[in-house]
Amino acid sequence: MTTPAFVFDHWATAHQQRVETVLARTLPGEDTLPERLHEAMRYAVLGGGKRVRALLSYAAAELASAPPEQADSAAAAVELIHAFSLVHDDMPCMDDDDLRRGKASCHKQYDDATALLVGDALQSLAFEALANPGAAQALKQVQVLAKATGSRGMCGGQSIDLQSTGKLLTRNALETMHQYKTGALIEAAALLGAYAADHTYQPLIDTLEQYSQHMGLAFQVVDDILDATADTQTLGKTAGKDALQEKSTYVSLLGLDEAKSLVNALHAQTLQLLAGFDNKADPLRGIAKFICERPF
Amino acid sequence: MTTPAFVFDHWATAHQQRVETVLARTLPGEDTLPERLHEAMRYAVLGGGKRVRALLSYAAAELASAPPEQADSAAAAVELIHAFSLVHDDMPCMDDDDLRRGKASCHKQYDDATALLVGDALQSLAFEALANPGAAQALKQVQVLAKATGSRGMCGGQSIDLQSTGKLLTRNALETMHQYKTGALIEAAALLGAYAADHTYQPLIDTLEQYSQHMGLAFQVVDDILDATADTQTLGKTAGKDALQEKSTYVSLLGLDEAKSLVNALHAQTLQLLAGFDNKADPLRGIAKFICERPF
Repeated sequence: MTTPAFVFDHWATAHQQRVETVLARTLPGEDTLPERLHEAMRYAVLGGGKRVRALLSYAAAELASAPPEQADSAAAAVELIHAFSLVHDDMPCMDDDDLRRGKASCHKQYDDATALLVGDALQSLAFEALANPGAAQALKQVQVLAKATGSRGMCGGQSIDLQSTGKLLTRNALETMHQYKTGALIEAAALLGAYAADHTYQPLIDTLEQYSQHMGLAFQVVDDILDATADTQTLGKTAGKDALQEKSTYVSLLGLDEAKSLVNALHAQTLQLLAGFDNKADPLRGIAKFICERPF
Repeated sequence: MTTPAFVFDHWATAHQQRVETVLARTLPGEDTLPERLHEAMRYAVLGGGKRVRALLSYAAAELASAPPEQADSAAAAVELIHAFSLVHDDMPCMDDDDLRRGKASCHKQYDDATALLVGDALQSLAFEALANPGAAQALKQVQVLAKATGSRGMCGGQSIDLQSTGKLLTRNALETMHQYKTGALIEAAALLGAYAADHTYQPLIDTLEQYSQHMGLAFQVVDDILDATADTQTLGKTAGKDALQEKSTYVSLLGLDEAKSLVNALHAQTLQLLAGFDNKADPLRGIAKFICERPF
């Protein structure tokens, strides 16, 4: 008997559904006081998004030989943090965007004050989700996620982004901004998955750090390519925003062709990095392909 | 030799200075990237406030026989959460207040987007501070603080408050709102202090829960009394706001005299609750007196 071939699409769909179920269970119900806030939190989180960060947590957990049920809180926590950042990022005082995941953004559907509280409460819920079942390495997970979310991570990246709009950035400055803004949470997603295991060996953490640094960068370059080339309907969010807001992007800095070459190079390096691992690394290989080959 | 009498003012000043030092060390420096965000975070947190929540953590730790150095992360975490809530609460889409702790509120001093990110990053930093040293019961602390901060705690209370403005609330509805809005974090401050000990016994937790429920209520009633009777300079924040915003308060609901009687009754019940404890409960007794006898 041979092991059936790994099919990434099946794995991804199964784990997207899995985290959706976990999120639906983790978010308080719409009949729980305060009802309107809980309705808005569920609106902002459920039924949308590719769940790339959750997939990364599950894939890293698989590499670390942790069963998916031990990675559920990690997967939910990183998606809650990501959803909170989108809600706040869309607000009028930030990017002022009306559209998100193909529907009205949270402050358009509700109001600014509710969107502010939705983001705040989603962040708290992420840490509550991690701490509640209390896995063996849950405290380590809280530590990694808190740092990746705060001023030396995602929020810090938003701040650098605000300061940079309208300025011409060097490639180094652009990489630093994105390492904070999106890279830190992508890396945290992978590490939280690994720390879902009862024990984790440092070489595995080192590999995941390199993997997620490559993937974080690739993810951003692809985002910049799509913002410049795809239409709003395909994206489910407003396209062409970067040029409109005079933001430095990998496309404005490198040109479209060189940006595409960079993605391909990162993909190749990532597969090389995973070459020594057996089929436990298949989900991570699949995610790399998925990130690097989003249609452009 | 007799034990020197406990002087609350000395204890309070020493522990206010203590948490200030811990906060100054916990917050990233103004020369750390992103500099402007870190400057704004320090502006919002340092050099202001009575630090009642931190004092509660230290006082509860003393009751639980934990040395103050084990309660530093708890004290800092609750003050970071409190500061984050003030920054977001003052924003134009919420209470739109220009004055806080006697100086310009964060969004007036900087801008709305920075204030949004300051609040977000202060919340992350609170959980990072708790998780980082990794005390014996740190995961329990994360769990309690996350729940008290989120939609079934402080953020939920803000949401109920938004929905209630301009409506006449029953006393029950008012108590529920404040239990969420301020009571939950005050209770968490006390519990986090107790969980700073290596072991905590349930009867002590039960006492602290009752203590902090009384004190949370008293704190709010006194706030309502001061908002109705003190001037802006004395308060260090805009006075008379409740009447202006047509908010239901304990003063509007009970009248000034009955509100004052309620505070006195809560104070007496609290001292009764602590009657069985030795001088380890002196700081908690002092805080009760401080909260209930703020000049009005």
